[in-house]
Amino acid sequence: MADGTETAARRGRRGGGGAARRAERTSGAIEQARYITRNMPDFEILNAEALEIIESNAETVLEEIGVSFPENDPALARWREAGADVDGDRVRIPKGLARKLCATAPSTFTQIARNPERAVEIGGRNLVLAPVYGPPFVRDSGGRRYATMADFEKFVKLGHQSKWLHHSGGTVCEPTDLPVNKRHFDMLMAHMTLTDKPFMGSVTEPSRAVDSVEMADILFGGLDDRTALISLININSPLTFDSVMMGALEAYAAANQACIISPFIVGGAMAPVSVAGTLTQVLAEVMAGVAYSQLVRPGAPVVFGAFVTSIDMNSGAPTFGTPEAAQITYGAGQLARRLGLPFRSAGSFNGSKLPDAQAAYETANSLNAGLLAGVNFMLHACGWLEGGLVADFEKFVMDADQLGVLHHLARGVEIDENAQAMDALREVGPGGHYLGCAHTQANFKAAFWKSGLLDYKPFETWADEGGRDTRGLAAAKMDKLLSDYVQPEMDPAVREALKDYVATKKASMPDAFS
Amino acid sequence: MADGTETAARRGRRGGGGAARRAERTSGAIEQARYITRNMPDFEILNAEALEIIESNAETVLEEIGVSFPENDPALARWREAGADVDGDRVRIPKGLARKLCATAPSTFTQIARNPERAVEIGGRNLVLAPVYGPPFVRDSGGRRYATMADFEKFVKLGHQSKWLHHSGGTVCEPTDLPVNKRHFDMLMAHMTLTDKPFMGSVTEPSRAVDSVEMADILFGGLDDRTALISLININSPLTFDSVMMGALEAYAAANQACIISPFIVGGAMAPVSVAGTLTQVLAEVMAGVAYSQLVRPGAPVVFGAFVTSIDMNSGAPTFGTPEAAQITYGAGQLARRLGLPFRSAGSFNGSKLPDAQAAYETANSLNAGLLAGVNFMLHACGWLEGGLVADFEKFVMDADQLGVLHHLARGVEIDENAQAMDALREVGPGGHYLGCAHTQANFKAAFWKSGLLDYKPFETWADEGGRDTRGLAAAKMDKLLSDYVQPEMDPAVREALKDYVATKKASMPDAFS
Repeated sequence: MADGTETAARRGRRGGGGAARRAERTSGAIEQARYITRNMPDFEILNAEALEIIESNAETVLEEIGVSFPENDPALARWREAGADVDGDRVRIPKGLARKLCATAPSTFTQIARNPERAVEIGGRNLVLAPVYGPPFVRDSGGRRYATMADFEKFVKLGHQSKWLHHSGGTVCEPTDLPVNKRHFDMLMAHMTLTDKPFMGSVTEPSRAVDSVEMADILFGGLDDRTALISLININSPLTFDSVMMGALEAYAAANQACIISPFIVGGAMAPVSVAGTLTQVLAEVMAGVAYSQLVRPGAPVVFGAFVTSIDMNSGAPTFGTPEAAQITYGAGQLARRLGLPFRSAGSFNGSKLPDAQAAYETANSLNAGLLAGVNFMLHACGWLEGGLVADFEKFVMDADQLGVLHHLARGVEIDENAQAMDALREVGPGGHYLGCAHTQANFKAAFWKSGLLDYKPFETWADEGGRDTRGLAAAKMDKLLSDYVQPEMDPAVREALKDYVATKKASMPDAFS
Repeated sequence: MADGTETAARRGRRGGGGAARRAERTSGAIEQARYITRNMPDFEILNAEALEIIESNAETVLEEIGVSFPENDPALARWREAGADVDGDRVRIPKGLARKLCATAPSTFTQIARNPERAVEIGGRNLVLAPVYGPPFVRDSGGRRYATMADFEKFVKLGHQSKWLHHSGGTVCEPTDLPVNKRHFDMLMAHMTLTDKPFMGSVTEPSRAVDSVEMADILFGGLDDRTALISLININSPLTFDSVMMGALEAYAAANQACIISPFIVGGAMAPVSVAGTLTQVLAEVMAGVAYSQLVRPGAPVVFGAFVTSIDMNSGAPTFGTPEAAQITYGAGQLARRLGLPFRSAGSFNGSKLPDAQAAYETANSLNAGLLAGVNFMLHACGWLEGGLVADFEKFVMDADQLGVLHHLARGVEIDENAQAMDALREVGPGGHYLGCAHTQANFKAAFWKSGLLDYKPFETWADEGGRDTRGLAAAKMDKLLSDYVQPEMDPAVREALKDYVATKKASMPDAFS
């Protein structure tokens, strides 16, 4: 297709069978965009001098202050062996060592998907978009409430139906109605069966990371070192790598599964109040984490993460979509590229309680910064509300529509003869109009991004139709996407094998709710 | 001040008198930011080859197709004398001539203001923000209605009170209750007496441009070639310079007053559907217009304008905040810098009927693009709604708050010793927190941008206070800004002279309503 999309209906050769035919019959045949490959430069906010100072300071932090790996003797042993100075759980890393260890991490890697056309290439000029991760609450037109597994499945279906979303994500909301120690099975089953997009693994216990890898092995009929999972390993900033997260990282890295190694920073609380100071800490933390992943398995796929927000210094509330967060995102992107690592940052961040103008300003500020900062994997690209406490159904649909803006912006500016349009300029001349000219007729379909949600109607039509705001439009679109949803086909034997695995595992342990 | 602002209360020496004292007593003392001076690079989307192709094609357009100056014999005579090929009202400009004529236009100029601290420097690394221009309707919590002079004055007062707005603008809304041929007097009086920020002149008839200059001459006690007005001269795209607009330009340029020479393009209708083709036409049009201004008066201050939006090719509706508009804004900025001219583009553009999420996404997309594109004068920076048909009071306040994001982003990243924060990193170490450390205490006040409007409160507090959305917060802030408004002091003799001028002029002509 001209805009890099395709419809399920046209993928007859692979979609095959009844599901594809059913999809073809519906008006809602799934149109899906390929992940973004940028044809435009990155925005580089730091000059060479600033980059060198920050990199030098990060090395000083690692050598003089060091990082902490509490309750993790195997990690301390690995660090000692690699040449670090280990004192208690403090690991001081000589200048140059962390960067040298990072060099074995790949600059780009493929995450496979059940549908081979949905595999994503993470790194380079690419941008892969994944939905919100982690909220204990959901919100829809009925208000705010604790999230359940039914909400989770609804989000996975919405993600499957969203044209501009390349990835099904992970904990799109916390299914709080399920036992804490078993809900990862249900979440993984939802991602594996309700969509054919790639997805994320569990990190809440090292054993759950192992479960995730085992389920992926069943789903893909043997992983054979292929990367089928990407998982979010948060650093306990400042400078602390807790043993639960590191245990998950160890399991994933050993199995050649990808980890996003990501400082989680509310600026002013978990990092200095300055942008340069925060970037120094982010770089030191990511270098230590990535280096450790390479000690576990050289070549294991990892991503340079940066979740950074600012704080309202009066109330202590985290704030989103702020200029300081954008500056850090731009700077961290430069640091990641200089390390040769894929980069994760930005998202549909906002602090609003409702999917209103505040939510949209803050989200757009962050999405735009993420595209221009060279982000390669954007978690939370849609659906985030209220500082991440809430996954909002309407905002999921609204944000997912705005992701189309990023796709079209990333195409850059074509400059071939057709794009130069000199024939059109000659044909129309002063005082004419272009609507009917040959160049317009040949190009108009692919020329401009068009929202699949927003209102462009004349005032009177809009008023006659009820004068809906964006939330009202999004609620209607959500209903349409869900009613058009067709579950992608799956080998019944694989499905049964997964069910058996989960049933056996669940039966082996008592329910735990905390 | 640390963030480049100051309060009226501190400007005692000049504010003087009772008004300043009254302002000091209120909690709403006016805090005002200086215009933005960027300490960050521009985003350059076009590479050298693309720039050269577009510049070469624009020269071809001017030489082969030419531009039209209908019903304007003096203009045709000027062009003929300058060496252009004039055929009827068509002016074909030999390659190189327009660019050569543009060279006498200043790359930066000062627009004076009644308050000398509000003077703005337009060009270079600066960005001056001005409010919405032109809507026939207004909207507030009561709905949408035709704009009146009372609305106009309310907007001027809101602009005066808005910390991040540097300029009072021009036709903030059309006062449709006043005669068409006299309303410019009332609009100018409002800008001259209700605020001390710089403002714009009338362009709807050449005689009204002359009136504007004469009133500015009275206000400033003689202009002496100082630039006190900036005015919006739209080009009738494609490639047509109508005699009314050119008449206004002639009056302003002759008096050394500034003109924004601006193609007004709905892409696909008034320009080719491609970005490169549109940029070619924009460059050709601006070069012809600027060259003409320099034929009227070499050295007259002008701005390279680009008002460009895309179109929904199904309905014909213009669309805003789109990726194509952003690409054109980035590219036009590069072309303007290569011409050595100040650049005008972007704004609070959106197509929504309400100040909702759509309005905010689209606005944020455009504002961010404008900052990174190197815009020097941003008209419509706040208050625009419904494709420019409506000036919205709530959105004016919401957008004006978001302009603070641009100010802080434009500061760039500091890299001095304090910003590096190595002492803080050493003091806190792994597992600590930064809230109480010395570096945080010394820096937190100026560290992060803080909205003066948006909601950062805990959910329960927010709910207890009524669960307001952004519109509700903006309506309350608007009321506060207006109730805190104090009219800036003015020499009574100047005010009387202006009143006399307007009364005499109004008496000299019958009312006209179309």
